[in-house]
Amino acid sequence: MIIKLKSDINASEHQHLAGKINALGYKPTYVNTQFGKYLVCIGKKEIDLRNLGFESGVEDIFRVDDAFKLVSSQWKTAKTEIDLGGGIKIGNGHFQVMVGPCSIEGEAQIESTIKHMAENGVKIMRGGVFKPRSSPYSFRGYGIDSLKMWHEHASKAGIKIITEVMQVSQIDEMLPYVDIFQVGARNSQNFNLLDELGKVDKPVMLKRGISGTIEELLQSAEYIFSNGNEKILLCERGIRSYETAYRNTMDINAIAILKDKSHLPVVADPSHGIGVRKYVDKIALASVAAGADAVIMEVHECPEKAFSDGQQTLDHQESAILIDKMKNLRALLQ
Amino acid sequence: MIIKLKSDINASEHQHLAGKINALGYKPTYVNTQFGKYLVCIGKKEIDLRNLGFESGVEDIFRVDDAFKLVSSQWKTAKTEIDLGGGIKIGNGHFQVMVGPCSIEGEAQIESTIKHMAENGVKIMRGGVFKPRSSPYSFRGYGIDSLKMWHEHASKAGIKIITEVMQVSQIDEMLPYVDIFQVGARNSQNFNLLDELGKVDKPVMLKRGISGTIEELLQSAEYIFSNGNEKILLCERGIRSYETAYRNTMDINAIAILKDKSHLPVVADPSHGIGVRKYVDKIALASVAAGADAVIMEVHECPEKAFSDGQQTLDHQESAILIDKMKNLRALLQ
Amino acid sequence: MIIKLKSDINASEHQHLAGKINALGYKPTYVNTQFGKYLVCIGKKEIDLRNLGFESGVEDIFRVDDAFKLVSSQWKTAKTEIDLGGGIKIGNGHFQVMVGPCSIEGEAQIESTIKHMAENGVKIMRGGVFKPRSSPYSFRGYGIDSLKMWHEHASKAGIKIITEVMQVSQIDEMLPYVDIFQVGARNSQNFNLLDELGKVDKPVMLKRGISGTIEELLQSAEYIFSNGNEKILLCERGIRSYETAYRNTMDINAIAILKDKSHLPVVADPSHGIGVRKYVDKIALASVAAGADAVIMEVHECPEKAFSDGQQTLDHQESAILIDKMKNLRALLQ
Amino acid sequence: MIIKLKSDINASEHQHLAGKINALGYKPTYVNTQFGKYLVCIGKKEIDLRNLGFESGVEDIFRVDDAFKLVSSQWKTAKTEIDLGGGIKIGNGHFQVMVGPCSIEGEAQIESTIKHMAENGVKIMRGGVFKPRSSPYSFRGYGIDSLKMWHEHASKAGIKIITEVMQVSQIDEMLPYVDIFQVGARNSQNFNLLDELGKVDKPVMLKRGISGTIEELLQSAEYIFSNGNEKILLCERGIRSYETAYRNTMDINAIAILKDKSHLPVVADPSHGIGVRKYVDKIALASVAAGADAVIMEVHECPEKAFSDGQQTLDHQESAILIDKMKNLRALLQ
Repeated sequence: MIIKLKSDINASEHQHLAGKINALGYKPTYVNTQFGKYLVCIGKKEIDLRNLGFESGVEDIFRVDDAFKLVSSQWKTAKTEIDLGGGIKIGNGHFQVMVGPCSIEGEAQIESTIKHMAENGVKIMRGGVFKPRSSPYSFRGYGIDSLKMWHEHASKAGIKIITEVMQVSQIDEMLPYVDIFQVGARNSQNFNLLDELGKVDKPVMLKRGISGTIEELLQSAEYIFSNGNEKILLCERGIRSYETAYRNTMDINAIAILKDKSHLPVVADPSHGIGVRKYVDKIALASVAAGADAVIMEVHECPEKAFSDGQQTLDHQESAILIDKMKNLRALLQ
Repeated sequence: MIIKLKSDINASEHQHLAGKINALGYKPTYVNTQFGKYLVCIGKKEIDLRNLGFESGVEDIFRVDDAFKLVSSQWKTAKTEIDLGGGIKIGNGHFQVMVGPCSIEGEAQIESTIKHMAENGVKIMRGGVFKPRSSPYSFRGYGIDSLKMWHEHASKAGIKIITEVMQVSQIDEMLPYVDIFQVGARNSQNFNLLDELGKVDKPVMLKRGISGTIEELLQSAEYIFSNGNEKILLCERGIRSYETAYRNTMDINAIAILKDKSHLPVVADPSHGIGVRKYVDKIALASVAAGADAVIMEVHECPEKAFSDGQQTLDHQESAILIDKMKNLRALLQ
Repeated sequence: MIIKLKSDINASEHQHLAGKINALGYKPTYVNTQFGKYLVCIGKKEIDLRNLGFESGVEDIFRVDDAFKLVSSQWKTAKTEIDLGGGIKIGNGHFQVMVGPCSIEGEAQIESTIKHMAENGVKIMRGGVFKPRSSPYSFRGYGIDSLKMWHEHASKAGIKIITEVMQVSQIDEMLPYVDIFQVGARNSQNFNLLDELGKVDKPVMLKRGISGTIEELLQSAEYIFSNGNEKILLCERGIRSYETAYRNTMDINAIAILKDKSHLPVVADPSHGIGVRKYVDKIALASVAAGADAVIMEVHECPEKAFSDGQQTLDHQESAILIDKMKNLRALLQ
Repeated sequence: MIIKLKSDINASEHQHLAGKINALGYKPTYVNTQFGKYLVCIGKKEIDLRNLGFESGVEDIFRVDDAFKLVSSQWKTAKTEIDLGGGIKIGNGHFQVMVGPCSIEGEAQIESTIKHMAENGVKIMRGGVFKPRSSPYSFRGYGIDSLKMWHEHASKAGIKIITEVMQVSQIDEMLPYVDIFQVGARNSQNFNLLDELGKVDKPVMLKRGISGTIEELLQSAEYIFSNGNEKILLCERGIRSYETAYRNTMDINAIAILKDKSHLPVVADPSHGIGVRKYVDKIALASVAAGADAVIMEVHECPEKAFSDGQQTLDHQESAILIDKMKNLRALLQ
């Protein structure tokens, strides 16, 4: 059960309400975000909501059967819209493409990517400065300095930045230079990191775990929301299966289900999703057909020379053709 | 290596050629289909194809690296087109929708389905008369008599029939009444059944195994082709994964890959693929976006009253809307 | 619900009983095996069993909640014992090892294996004469003649034979030469084959499907039992997962669960289960520790020279050491 | 390639060596642990190790083909022994059982557990004070104060403590009270946490990810080792599969493989591994048979009253019987 509180609820109203909820055998959690105040009430008994509806301080009450609560579409039927500023929005009818390299490599690469974006009307750039790597001996990205340099170029061009944050200690230093924090698949249940990102007023794109369930992804989003941050994007990036013909099993099904079960926007990552360059376009189009609000993909001037993962990276020409197709498809479906 | 033989190759040319191939350390398998004669040559050594190219009886020679051979796109770059007669074709640019119930239940149901098909320009009807069931105590379909009755109605309406064959002993009795034999997921590696369907001159739609790999599906198709039947459709119907939010993980990735690796048409089965009625439309559209040549889906006048599996069955209105969307999408993509 | 019928139940008693069950809203299936007569009654209502218990012709009545019925331990608490003759038994406290090559190759190989078996007290020999192969161009076994020859050698030595049957048409010709029919993983839901093996009075070892669930395995066993054959062995042979460090994920968990849920004996196949020679011993021992009634393993005088799959095959020395360890472990656990 | 350095290597020797390695096209990483100094050298060229062997400061050189290096058995053939003090050791022939509740609940529970341990010769107690939970609204453990209280009781009784650390900020406060830090499955690739645990001189038990590969587990262990901590235990706790008859698929295969590929001790967690109380004993025994150096299991005086997860928790009687069986099995196998 979610109780939407009035913005001007006062302490005594709050205390009274919490007491009543406790008395009903429910455990209330108070949530205060950029956009609203809520009490998330967890319990097992069937209770009559009507009585609580008349309490002062209460704006509205919603029954939510899902295991996840605030991120559920059961209480918030309107779709969430993420506004990045400069007229760049995702969700609730707004579609965006995000492109860029696996790793930020240097100024020339950034400028070349920005030029490609400008030519194709793309407003959000992806790139890694902190890279999660299975092996401790692998390249881990150029770090905070490369982010600052990237931000300088991007902000001049009106381009927004999405990049991965890997640990709590990076949040503060990254904050001024990032427009969307990305949480990677391996950190999808790093609850500590999620808690802290819930205290920041910047959008967070949360990737599904390597073998995460749809419900686990939504519960991880609930961590962020319940800590105070409603600006969340859910990202399908492929799951692990027995099939070896591709790198991951992009789970297009999850896109359809996430769009139904949650009000949050859904981003598709076909690059990691299938992980094979020549099939990225098909999977990107399928993701849009299934309802994705955004597509994030690895693009590099010369994929063969890119740091790691060039196998799933499109060149500028492939990217341009695909962006055009996605836009046409998106127009048809609306 | 595949050697395409001349249609008028004679016995002595054949013998000479086989001898030469054996001498090169390769094992030749002679394949004689509706459309051509081939020698599939399996071996490990690198050999110089040019010498064999000049042998009499040889039309052309192709190197095929894939584990599967005749179904590979490496030798046959033109897409295979399945012609069902009456101008109804699948593959090579021709797109078809197949609709119908899980099980054939009776004349009223058939007529109602045919009426729905006529209104929406659908030419191929699906339905089960032999049903594979996990439990021996479950309903196993109304059998051959219901197929005959169905055929009577369908042929009058110019409708083609696709239905599942479960065992070798059913092939002959079904043959006159079936336009496409369907092989179910559980029989995807029933090599005996595949061998026998390779001896029939009717199209066969082969479903991917419940946890079958893409390569296994193509190898199973190779069984049919190498026994003499080139009329094969490959069907993606979802794989088994850890996720429980849906019934199967429809593997849209496989559609893109099958279209690339093979010349055979690819059919998508979103009904079994995701197995949840309200998401079938999104998955159908995603399948078309990924390149499917046909979509097969469960449709019933009243899904709630359908034999088993009503949970993934569309009603006529949902079906009509989806068919329209798929056709528009298909038009856009071409 | 399972009704155990008296062996001398007569037609009118039977008819009366079936009528009463139908009247209760249950669907009865009459099962007549080597060992008993049963009515398996499928329905959804809660009914009072006591009334039926007093009907003439009824020996006993059992409620069975499981989806599978006759193979469930809910009605038959005593463990099933498979008696192969010559004092060779499996299940209900009797433990057996089965060894032999992937494929029967010739007399020398058979004799060498029998010698190894004699030296180690092993009484059941495995080997393939019909081999299921992903590719139609692979070696498919030496067929029925090699089985006859093998049987000649084995019967002289008091050795029992287990070998795979792949299709219905092979059952009759194999029958005189086989002591246990093996159904392979790919045929685990070939219901036609299961139906026919239910009509034979020879033990059947049923392998779990490549990604079969434990319940599906038991349901497949139910096909055999309900057709009249109670002599069934369940075999765990590894499932398909994302892990690539081994060939299959031997699911030791399934052994413990099958032993609990069913009265049928459980056989472990560590050779295919993990599929890596140097780990077969550990997995065999773990299987015995988890309660397996038998272990079947690939053994060859010279694994390097064996037809296909030598990678998971033990040589005679490795086999001897492992057999000894398994026997000691088995003794300890009892 | 791993170069074991002499303990008294000086700066100029070090610099000279690193230069030489760089010149050979390899990237050296200097590792300084409690027990030794190493250079891990990553590169692709085939090089002649002999030249480097004569450099001053070099003790020995090892070629390591595995993707993981310091945790590989390719260079360190002797098994690692974890010494917890008080004569309590794990690995290299030493076997330990670890028991205790899911969550530390209070003094009575701790005392009851310690009494059970004393009666059965168990020296290591498990229990959670920080609990990772899918939902932010679930109980997250009693925190650091309960750890301090637990430590007081345990140290008096000569009992060692293993408990989960979930985030970097907890390491320091937990350090004085913990004998083994546990890293949970969800943090298996939380590289930040692994880096920091590599800087501590306390044993770390690292759980395999929920769908982690064996190689990923070993690479995560490499993070800890390469940061300076050689005291690592690897833990198999079940993987995610399609099967729903149990909670996880305990991967006994992984135990055999980890024991072979690494010199680190391997711990089996049958409680989470299969997740069903009545099968925990079979899976524990199978784990020991496969070579586990330790078994960790959930035990509670009254599982029905335990915080969360009581479904996989043994009571004291079940635990006592199982401990006895494991010890006998262990004795037999050695």
